[in-house]
Amino acid sequence: MATHSIASAPSVEQQLASYHDRIAGALVALVPRREPRRYLYDLLADQLARGGKGLRPALCLATCGAFGGDLDDAVPSAVALELLHNGFLVHDDVEDGSLYRRDQPTLYAQYGVGLAVNVGDAMHALAIRPLIDNLSRLEPETGRRVWREIEHMLTQSLEGQAIELGWIRDRVSGLTDADYLRMVLKKTTWYTCIHPCRIGALIATGDADDLDRFNAFGAFLGAAFQIQDDVLNLIGRYERYGKEILGDLWEGKRTLVLIHLERSATEYERTRLAEFLAQPRPERQERDVLWVYELIERYGSVDYARSSARQLAEAARQEFAVAYAGALPGPDRDFLYDLASFMVERDV
Amino acid sequence: MATHSIASAPSVEQQLASYHDRIAGALVALVPRREPRRYLYDLLADQLARGGKGLRPALCLATCGAFGGDLDDAVPSAVALELLHNGFLVHDDVEDGSLYRRDQPTLYAQYGVGLAVNVGDAMHALAIRPLIDNLSRLEPETGRRVWREIEHMLTQSLEGQAIELGWIRDRVSGLTDADYLRMVLKKTTWYTCIHPCRIGALIATGDADDLDRFNAFGAFLGAAFQIQDDVLNLIGRYERYGKEILGDLWEGKRTLVLIHLERSATEYERTRLAEFLAQPRPERQERDVLWVYELIERYGSVDYARSSARQLAEAARQEFAVAYAGALPGPDRDFLYDLASFMVERDV
Repeated sequence: MATHSIASAPSVEQQLASYHDRIAGALVALVPRREPRRYLYDLLADQLARGGKGLRPALCLATCGAFGGDLDDAVPSAVALELLHNGFLVHDDVEDGSLYRRDQPTLYAQYGVGLAVNVGDAMHALAIRPLIDNLSRLEPETGRRVWREIEHMLTQSLEGQAIELGWIRDRVSGLTDADYLRMVLKKTTWYTCIHPCRIGALIATGDADDLDRFNAFGAFLGAAFQIQDDVLNLIGRYERYGKEILGDLWEGKRTLVLIHLERSATEYERTRLAEFLAQPRPERQERDVLWVYELIERYGSVDYARSSARQLAEAARQEFAVAYAGALPGPDRDFLYDLASFMVERDV
Repeated sequence: MATHSIASAPSVEQQLASYHDRIAGALVALVPRREPRRYLYDLLADQLARGGKGLRPALCLATCGAFGGDLDDAVPSAVALELLHNGFLVHDDVEDGSLYRRDQPTLYAQYGVGLAVNVGDAMHALAIRPLIDNLSRLEPETGRRVWREIEHMLTQSLEGQAIELGWIRDRVSGLTDADYLRMVLKKTTWYTCIHPCRIGALIATGDADDLDRFNAFGAFLGAAFQIQDDVLNLIGRYERYGKEILGDLWEGKRTLVLIHLERSATEYERTRLAEFLAQPRPERQERDVLWVYELIERYGSVDYARSSARQLAEAARQEFAVAYAGALPGPDRDFLYDLASFMVERDV
């Protein structure tokens, strides 16, 4: 019996898909079916349909379920999280000048800066309705608390984004792992993990007093996620898609991989790397991008980043016991526990 | 007595300044005093300090006052309107590639696309807090209704922006005055006039049933405002500041001035104008911009736009009686009545 039960337990991917199914209808229903389609709502719907992993809504729904809440009560918030996330993606690509995401041209690359910025703004505007609905659907104080969570989430993410953009603009070199982790804490972890968990628990219990217990779990989980994202931007992609796909290198992103490389390289290499990073993106040369890519391989900087991500995932597993003390056994709780390994083992 | 009273009545400019004084403290208090300053909050504060007319908060506060409300109750909403407006300004400049605004370099021109998009996003994020505060400060249903007004306002504005960007992208020619007015209704009037009035009345009365009475007044007033803005982008500025300042022409904006010119010009001129408008902005030549500028003068297209703006202002004055039936006499009501003339007579 036990063996059978383990064998048939849903995988993290299957669970992600099932959480996505719970919000898909509400997400589509929020996109207006009216003009202007060609320059706004069709673009917005296309972007949503590209289908990421749906990690943020899944964390919110699963946490709600693990604490005995009705998943339907968390759907509006989960939908808002997915819309806000997609708005960030669209704006990030504009801000970073990214031409590809998930091996497809970005909305910015296809339609230009103007329409892309506007579509991102519209995603954030559409996220307002489900959050207003919360105010009558949930206990009024719970609905207000969700709004406060969202507000904190947005400002933290935008602060993190400002730090990262500032590093590139200022041609900063010599950053430490701690600098990187602090930036990622702000840029990624609040909105990708911490607040989705907090909001799910808040909706399930109506209790806002002890939400900080999710902060360490979410921070470790989110940092592991971001480092794996940076790794996936590099490995196995040049061979498959060619040089243009090495977006993080063309953009000069200060990833953990690059930070490791900087401190591992020889004095000569470090100087040449600093010169590369000091160039504006349009002046960067293909041969230099490929040189950085080879250097990363030679110094094992990807392996270093992978190893850091695994340590963070392990720390998240440890913190799971604190964050989810009192959670009900079942598929929601199992999914949340399994996420830490999934974050660092996934290849998409 | 009457003469004395008229002579000492505050001007629209003085009233605008006094409404701005009511929100200035709350606006400044909303900007976090923490890092990252250099790439986020200092830029954001600088933009706010550039000081526009404060038209949107003024409409909101004055309407609240005219219906007997406590202006302090409307301050959070007025602050949110000003933040959302400034976020739009920053993003508009990115989307249009505008280098100057009010004769100063735009935030986008100074800091680039990435930081500017992020600062605009942060302005919208900071607008959330006062709108959450409404939920406990006002009657809960009134606070929720303000949120709904804001949501409608944002989606309408973003739809209007998409239409305008789409026209430029598709190199559309042969637009009519009606096309232009419909675009401006969406892009400008909801957020500049209609919703500020509606929100002010809602807060004063707690009654959401009859807010549509402001729609025609606000639409006429806002359209007059936008046309005058387009006119001010052209007149007396080339002589003072040089060719770079003719931003709307460089950007190929489909203003009422340009639409009038298109239909007034000869077949030859129209063809040449269409070629100019079909060029991407970076390929436009100074001599062509100046040729369009001279053509506008020759065909009296600015005079035509001014005349349309005056008609719209007159229509707003007519609708004032409907929108503000039952409003209390006093400086708030006087300010609202005088705004129509101010919109088309102002030179800033």
